[in-house]
Amino acid sequence: MKRIADSTVRRLSAYLRFLEDFETRGLSTISSEELAKRGGTTSAQVRKDLSFFGSFGKRGLGYSVPELAGRLREILGLGREWRVVIVGAGKIGAALAQYRGFRQRGFNILAAYDNNPDKIGKPLEGIPVRDIAQLERDLVRDAPDIVVLTVPSDQAQLLLDRVVKSGIKAVLNFAPTQLQSPADVTVKTVNMAMELEGLSFALTNRD
Amino acid sequence: MKRIADSTVRRLSAYLRFLEDFETRGLSTISSEELAKRGGTTSAQVRKDLSFFGSFGKRGLGYSVPELAGRLREILGLGREWRVVIVGAGKIGAALAQYRGFRQRGFNILAAYDNNPDKIGKPLEGIPVRDIAQLERDLVRDAPDIVVLTVPSDQAQLLLDRVVKSGIKAVLNFAPTQLQSPADVTVKTVNMAMELEGLSFALTNRD
Repeated sequence: MKRIADSTVRRLSAYLRFLEDFETRGLSTISSEELAKRGGTTSAQVRKDLSFFGSFGKRGLGYSVPELAGRLREILGLGREWRVVIVGAGKIGAALAQYRGFRQRGFNILAAYDNNPDKIGKPLEGIPVRDIAQLERDLVRDAPDIVVLTVPSDQAQLLLDRVVKSGIKAVLNFAPTQLQSPADVTVKTVNMAMELEGLSFALTNRD
Repeated sequence: MKRIADSTVRRLSAYLRFLEDFETRGLSTISSEELAKRGGTTSAQVRKDLSFFGSFGKRGLGYSVPELAGRLREILGLGREWRVVIVGAGKIGAALAQYRGFRQRGFNILAAYDNNPDKIGKPLEGIPVRDIAQLERDLVRDAPDIVVLTVPSDQAQLLLDRVVKSGIKAVLNFAPTQLQSPADVTVKTVNMAMELEGLSFALTNRD
């Protein structure tokens, strides 16, 4: 398949949310214009984004809401359960452990890992917190699909290397640092400051 | 100014991070190709993103690292302090209160607000936690630039309405729900599940 840009995948996730909202409200069809309006983009962009994945919708009739929602879930790989492990049981790790949106989407958090003896053995929102010393052993045994890294910046690369060596191919990193990984491993970095920068940009560039 | 897409602003934030990394390493010039490589995009995209904001760089010589970094900081509105208030002192609020990246970027968290008597009055990482009953009064008095909403989904719209009525023009929302706001208010929603969807997409669509 053609390489799809991160920004496209992001928009597909957003479209799916709008479609699910429309489904809840009992709407059966939607135009690319309506999807674009909700997503703050153009209808040409919507059609282009969807065209990567085959043909959808009928000219003049718009898209079938349940059909397009189903297809987007497939494209995004949401038809199955994904096994997730959190490395770092600090504040961000704890916030993620309690985040309800994950389970709704099929992301099942198996365990969290930490090196702090005060944290090990005390479940976090029902999720076991284990000793990071047993990380490699458990990764091989439990074979999670995704590791979420919520460790301090100066430990992030070391821990990424450890999980990559254990065969993990997808990592969500919350440390505000750029990490190096092999080409066959997908690492996404969530940078909270970057989200605020979107707002400082908007405030600075108001008409 | 021409409306700039969110995805462009995101890339500008990313370029700035790469440039700062280059600055630390003492590099003085960089090509659009190098910037593109670090950002997982194309050099044409880099040139297009920067062209919105005037002319940068010299053909064949690339960009001056300190000059471009300085210009990006200006464009992103990072030359000043931004006053931030957190509404909701739960786990995500606490994680954000301790996040070091904010202060480095000029985002100064003034206070957090909650309706839980057990939380009110107990500072969170040095940040005062106040009674949400006094939110409107404090917003008028302290005039923050940005409000970060970390409240449950079913309270998010109500609290957004309250801060908008108090004159706030920029909101970062962590509740996994779509919020309605007036046209002159910028609301960015951070959806953690969406970040994981980028990974499930990558795992599903591997070569």
